[in-house]
Amino acid sequence: MNAAPDTAAAWLHEATTEARQAAHILARAPDEQRSQALRAAAVALRQGISAILAANAADLAAAPDNGAFRDRLTLTPARIEAMAEGLETVAALPDPLGRTLAAWTRPNGLHIRRVATPIGVIGMIYESRPNVGADAAALTVKSGNAVILRGGSESLNSARAIQAAISAGLGAAGLPEAAVQITPDADRAHVGAMLAAAGRIDLIIPRGGRALVERVQAEARVPVLAHAEGLCHTYVHRAADPEMARRVVANAKMRRPGVCGATETLLIDAAIAPSLLPRIVADLAALGCRFRADPGARALLPELPAAGPMDFDTEWLDAVLSVKVVNGVEEALAHIARHGSEHTEAIITEDRAAAEAFLGGIDSAVGLWNASTQFCDGGEFGFGAEIGIATGRIHARGPVGLEQLTSFRYVIHGSGQIRP
Amino acid sequence: MNAAPDTAAAWLHEATTEARQAAHILARAPDEQRSQALRAAAVALRQGISAILAANAADLAAAPDNGAFRDRLTLTPARIEAMAEGLETVAALPDPLGRTLAAWTRPNGLHIRRVATPIGVIGMIYESRPNVGADAAALTVKSGNAVILRGGSESLNSARAIQAAISAGLGAAGLPEAAVQITPDADRAHVGAMLAAAGRIDLIIPRGGRALVERVQAEARVPVLAHAEGLCHTYVHRAADPEMARRVVANAKMRRPGVCGATETLLIDAAIAPSLLPRIVADLAALGCRFRADPGARALLPELPAAGPMDFDTEWLDAVLSVKVVNGVEEALAHIARHGSEHTEAIITEDRAAAEAFLGGIDSAVGLWNASTQFCDGGEFGFGAEIGIATGRIHARGPVGLEQLTSFRYVIHGSGQIRP
Repeated sequence: MNAAPDTAAAWLHEATTEARQAAHILARAPDEQRSQALRAAAVALRQGISAILAANAADLAAAPDNGAFRDRLTLTPARIEAMAEGLETVAALPDPLGRTLAAWTRPNGLHIRRVATPIGVIGMIYESRPNVGADAAALTVKSGNAVILRGGSESLNSARAIQAAISAGLGAAGLPEAAVQITPDADRAHVGAMLAAAGRIDLIIPRGGRALVERVQAEARVPVLAHAEGLCHTYVHRAADPEMARRVVANAKMRRPGVCGATETLLIDAAIAPSLLPRIVADLAALGCRFRADPGARALLPELPAAGPMDFDTEWLDAVLSVKVVNGVEEALAHIARHGSEHTEAIITEDRAAAEAFLGGIDSAVGLWNASTQFCDGGEFGFGAEIGIATGRIHARGPVGLEQLTSFRYVIHGSGQIRP
Repeated sequence: MNAAPDTAAAWLHEATTEARQAAHILARAPDEQRSQALRAAAVALRQGISAILAANAADLAAAPDNGAFRDRLTLTPARIEAMAEGLETVAALPDPLGRTLAAWTRPNGLHIRRVATPIGVIGMIYESRPNVGADAAALTVKSGNAVILRGGSESLNSARAIQAAISAGLGAAGLPEAAVQITPDADRAHVGAMLAAAGRIDLIIPRGGRALVERVQAEARVPVLAHAEGLCHTYVHRAADPEMARRVVANAKMRRPGVCGATETLLIDAAIAPSLLPRIVADLAALGCRFRADPGARALLPELPAAGPMDFDTEWLDAVLSVKVVNGVEEALAHIARHGSEHTEAIITEDRAAAEAFLGGIDSAVGLWNASTQFCDGGEFGFGAEIGIATGRIHARGPVGLEQLTSFRYVIHGSGQIRP
């Protein structure tokens, strides 16, 4: 299945030409038409359920014998219904296009408006998890962008069946089907061609494990919006409400230990640790959490395993918590600056000055006062849907929803002004 | 002067470590302190004028015998004063940091604010034009970023003298001098090291000719904000005010033919061309403009040279205008979609519906109605100063001023919320 890179590049050249034309039309289509396309796509998904399940069965027949992998690949009627509902949810969101982001009049009378526009052609590279293609298509169509999908090669049949339903929805709404395309075969050269498509693809969004994201970031000649690492901290300040701290830390770590906003390291002030840390540890242990403790924490709880040299630099994504006792906000900030990934950090305190010092001292995309780090999520932010979380500092930070899939342009009204 | 790439990488590792620490401090310094640093830098530039001129003389002694190149490289007391005044101008601009970009409260009571922050560490790669370093340092310091400067190797002494004055200003204001650094020698490996510095430099801004920009875009492993091509159009609609059209086209082409917002192609409606095109051509010819005309224009003005096959795809940056007669807005838009660079386009018309169809039909960063394309400029937009014009669609489009040198983060206040 590895054709020459030339073949992949030729396919992409044609696909991006059509995608660019489709994007031009989508950008000018009214919100109601883009939304109608998504509702029609939901209908097509439901009507195509047998064909989608058959395509998925073909993928599963060839898939490796790995339980977690097969689970992500597997489609069921309930999962297809969830995808359809996802399309309808995005259709119902407010139009992200055409918003006036800023407007002002210059002394010479020129009236300048900055207006939200689509980005253009998005490239979506994801693993063998077919629903990601539906989510990405929903957000890109709603925001007036075209998308080239590249799902994991083991999910090719499933991904193509889903793409076909969405393109059918576009056609039913009178919009170009080429606004949502998918690479035609499992050839890995397609990924390379997409990453090299400067000027033809405006933005690449990788969605998957760290190996995928790192390959995309290392090779892309196209701007990338990606999620790298989420080594999030919760800092329990000495003025924390103990019961709130117990509740929030348990949620921040154990609600879903595998999400990027899960707390990986607990920092707790020495002044409150003797009374509170044993209770927090007991709460978490009861939920199945294991620990890696610094000497300060082990002085209080000698039964905790000692943290190794890299443990405070490790994003566990698992039921494991690194624990360190600190002396105040400055030491907490210094630890986060050294070990954190600038993703999401929280402070638990009743002391406003301490909270402000903490929130002003971190460089992270999201800072929370008295709330769980697991709130770093587009749905919880009220975005309605998200395509991922961005950990860079360019274009978008944090949850990436419809608004983050837009760019802008300037519309200027004059009366014959010339520049002196 | 070509040391091993290892040496350049080692220098950059150290420099970016210090720059990151400096950026962390600048990001938290009050606007008054960042502005004070720029005012002190202006003083240092004026006090250091002899040293700067001596450094510049050393550069000029070794510079190639190319008049335009030497002119860009040459510093004079007036040019140094202009740099100092530029620093003071930027110091006086409003603080771009800390602005609340959006704020909302979720049904669960979480209060979410999106706040403007610096980007972090900027890499500025420019040609042998020393004032660019001063402009870039002013904008990055004001916006709380650190910058690593890499000027053209023939300007090394001048660029270092300017950087020294700016670092002195930072020091005088109690800010870290490492917020503005410059590569220590003319080794070309420094450029490669900067382009490879993913995670250590957050954004590269190249400023110079197309070869420089294209190399940066091709090689960078770091996000790039760059100006590629400005193939701008002015479309004179049939309902144009003829005198306004003459005035605006003459300005759009000939005010400064070498700037990126200069009009390269005139599109004019067949309905108005017989009466108006001869006058526009005469106006421009009197200003020294030459022409490349399509058959429609040559039917009216046979003396105009015929356009060659690539002329409508050529950014002249010179006193040359491509001219084409079209039939209405749709044909103008089709020509721009095929030949344009999505930079800046203008329509001259008294017909609001035609203007709206044109402004809604282009995909360009800037669209103007009844004004000169040469208004595509940060100063003319009211930004106070600009570091360049961005032609991509990610993060910033059009003039790049202080606001475009910021990112954002989320600050969330809760009362113990946990995620369900």
